Amino acid sequence: GYSSLPRSVHGLAGAAEWESVRALLPDLAGRRVVDLGCGFGWFARHAAAEGAKSVLALDLSENMLARAKAETQSPAVRYEIADLDRLELPKDTFDFAYSSLAFHYIADFDRLVRTIHAALVPGSSFVFTIEHPLYMAPSAPNWAEVDGRTVWPVDGYLVEGPRTTEWLAKGVVKHHRTLGTTLNALIAAGFVIRHVEEWKPSEAQLAAHPEWQVELNRPMFLLIACERP
Amino acid sequence: GYSSLPRSVHGLAGAAEWESVRALLPDLAGRRVVDLGCGFGWFARHAAAEGAKSVLALDLSENMLARAKAETQSPAVRYEIADLDRLELPKDTFDFAYSSLAFHYIADFDRLVRTIHAALVPGSSFVFTIEHPLYMAPSAPNWAEVDGRTVWPVDGYLVEGPRTTEWLAKGVVKHHRTLGTTLNALIAAGFVIRHVEEWKPSEAQLAAHPEWQVELNRPMFLLIACERP
Repeated sequence: GYSSLPRSVHGLAGAAEWESVRALLPDLAGRRVVDLGCGFGWFARHAAAEGAKSVLALDLSENMLARAKAETQSPAVRYEIADLDRLELPKDTFDFAYSSLAFHYIADFDRLVRTIHAALVPGSSFVFTIEHPLYMAPSAPNWAEVDGRTVWPVDGYLVEGPRTTEWLAKGVVKHHRTLGTTLNALIAAGFVIRHVEEWKPSEAQLAAHPEWQVELNRPMFLLIACERP
Repeated sequence: GYSSLPRSVHGLAGAAEWESVRALLPDLAGRRVVDLGCGFGWFARHAAAEGAKSVLALDLSENMLARAKAETQSPAVRYEIADLDRLELPKDTFDFAYSSLAFHYIADFDRLVRTIHAALVPGSSFVFTIEHPLYMAPSAPNWAEVDGRTVWPVDGYLVEGPRTTEWLAKGVVKHHRTLGTTLNALIAAGFVIRHVEEWKPSEAQLAAHPEWQVELNRPMFLLIACERP
């Protein structure tokens, strides 16, 4: 299950995309941070270690929050249970919003990004990752062979809506939105797009993990950095 | 060849994405327009008919420019031969930049967008379309069958660079960039992203052309609107 993934065991260092995400982060010292979908609290602890003034770390899973709390010493971090699809946040309260691999489970992304925008003070930034829509879209998201080539068999990319997968647990529902829809929702909420990264392994990662070469065929993660002007 | 495509025979009305592009355009009345890769001049004439003050319409093809000139009466339109990979434009001279399905032939996109940015006055907009990178990326960009499903077999999406195709003519070279790279180049040049559309047929188009249903599996066109603040 989820607890045995490298990123669950080794934290940020076990997440292949972490160095790319880190390059998008602002200086966290003195910031009031909200972490949306904090899981086991790896990022919340990272932010506290970087000198964040406060970290409000939210997740839907009581089990994850229990482990997160047990592994966190910093008094700057506060964990709360929250359903991001019904998220309420105080207005003009945070300097930085962060989310890792949570928003593809959200049904109403427009509402969520409006809520985040309203919770951030002017001049804040917002960095998040999701499963790339190209990764999520297909009816059978698995490598296939076509004429001797390994390909990612894309269908239904332009048909947005729920996708049910059997990953880790049966019947998990994700909500597919195109990359364009995701960006346009951010723009409509008032964010300015600063960086869009369709993640790929670095040269160093490919040297250490030659079997990741196949990942160059399609992006697994999407990283977005934006600003609330 | 290219001359017999619906868009060449019927102009903008023969281009399936035109209504979506049109929705992104500013009011063209009184604007100084530059059209990058004007082809037979359909958009240049449209801009003139909409009241553009001037239209500088550029293309690499002498044959296309000859037909464009022959079919254009408006004195507001000026055609010039130009290689977009070596484009020079006067600074602070245009109110609107436009391009349809030309930039995927450009090797140095960074240079091109910096040149366009410098040629636009503050407050201008820039709208362009390209072949969607998902459409261009695969080594064999054709529908395939996998387990009875029609899929778009994506490989090499994260490997940017030239793609040689046999479309219309042998050995045409396109330059594949990811969607992220395209957006980041615009942002780095100073543009603000306003709208990103991974084009799909409308309900009305699907009703009129049921055979286009397959196009919902992956986007063929990418439409981008940005602003030069």
